[in-house]
Amino acid sequence: MADIPPSHPRFASLRRRERLIDGFRAGLATEAGLLAHGRGEALDYLLGEQTHSFADEAIRTASAMLVCARYPVFSVNGNSASAAGPEIIQVLAAHGDMAAEVNLFHHSPERSRRIHDYLRGIGASHVFESVSAESQELPEIQHARRFMNQEGIARADVVLVALEDGDRCQALVRSGRTVIAIDLNPLSRTAKIAQVAIVDEISRALPLLAQYLREERTRPRQELEQRIASYDNNEVLRSAERVIRGSV
Amino acid sequence: MADIPPSHPRFASLRRRERLIDGFRAGLATEAGLLAHGRGEALDYLLGEQTHSFADEAIRTASAMLVCARYPVFSVNGNSASAAGPEIIQVLAAHGDMAAEVNLFHHSPERSRRIHDYLRGIGASHVFESVSAESQELPEIQHARRFMNQEGIARADVVLVALEDGDRCQALVRSGRTVIAIDLNPLSRTAKIAQVAIVDEISRALPLLAQYLREERTRPRQELEQRIASYDNNEVLRSAERVIRGSV
Repeated sequence: MADIPPSHPRFASLRRRERLIDGFRAGLATEAGLLAHGRGEALDYLLGEQTHSFADEAIRTASAMLVCARYPVFSVNGNSASAAGPEIIQVLAAHGDMAAEVNLFHHSPERSRRIHDYLRGIGASHVFESVSAESQELPEIQHARRFMNQEGIARADVVLVALEDGDRCQALVRSGRTVIAIDLNPLSRTAKIAQVAIVDEISRALPLLAQYLREERTRPRQELEQRIASYDNNEVLRSAERVIRGSV
Repeated sequence: MADIPPSHPRFASLRRRERLIDGFRAGLATEAGLLAHGRGEALDYLLGEQTHSFADEAIRTASAMLVCARYPVFSVNGNSASAAGPEIIQVLAAHGDMAAEVNLFHHSPERSRRIHDYLRGIGASHVFESVSAESQELPEIQHARRFMNQEGIARADVVLVALEDGDRCQALVRSGRTVIAIDLNPLSRTAKIAQVAIVDEISRALPLLAQYLREERTRPRQELEQRIASYDNNEVLRSAERVIRGSV
């Protein structure tokens, strides 16, 4: 990054790319994660690398859901930790009562522990790992991603997932949980299955979510519930599709 | 890949991803290359992971140009070697008089040598490295990618580049060379600057190019020149844009 000036039109995107490579070298992300990030970059490019009004609406709704939740948990994987570690901490701090749980598609105990330690190191106070001695299981899905920490997602009513695969998102919704997903592909199963899909780049979306959480923790509960009731995820996804379609 | 059956609708794409990861682990591709491949995957997804008629037209024109060329060279980088090593060899063999030259955006002598040795190992007879004791330089661009091997690209009238950055493509065109580019992004500078842009996935496009080369080596030169003269790259790029736009 030494030779890319902050005035470069794609500086933010290039800085995010460096974050992923740093995360990969630190053992947080995988090679498959680097590829997945590249796919996200292409979609974000088509979105003009900006937070659109449909994403803002989803983020506002997500904020209301998280404030109203009994026990919300942020499900963190290698890519979200690498791409947006500090921004994840911002959200946890802004909420005040939200835990993080490390859940990996390509699980290894070492990588899970490294991400746990990384989040703790940058300021998260409650971090769980899905795979632990006290794990419960989501039905219908395979691999280690089916596990839920007994103190974390197993107890959660609302789960915020980022860059998540469709199978796990579906299993979480079927288990009765409310799922908020951050996903740059409005056509993905994750975006369609989640109750709220934030079609935006994670490190742009999270600071905005943190801001709304700070503003809305004291709002009347009824107002927040009305906002949740009037939210239409299908319409948000259609708007995202239109932007991607039109901007190419 | 052991758990992905060949009947999977995205088998070919997933196999290509494995090739990139293998190439990265073998020291041919870089982390930045994995990210770039991910961006290409997203664009190929929008293209329906198939070779469209606009790509076929570009490949036919490229074939004519390569047959008519005095000395064509295939510029190979870490991603193209990883994603399509055997297909590169198919094209070189089908042409019969085309050399390969290793040119890297993130140059290291070791990686250049590894790609050289890899291509030789799978059957390429003439492989040069851009950075060598007998290099010449393209004006106007920085970094090691400006070098041209005196026996390779420095002598070439037609250069086939794949997954190439815009600066080098532009410098090659300004140097008076004809550039054929394989690039999944019809909006990229590379696609716009090249005389022929093949908007297609490299490992799908190259076998088709090899087939046309075999068929056309014996065609009357005049017929090939007419095809080249009637080719309109801007129209090809507009068609590619329309497909990407419509398929989201």
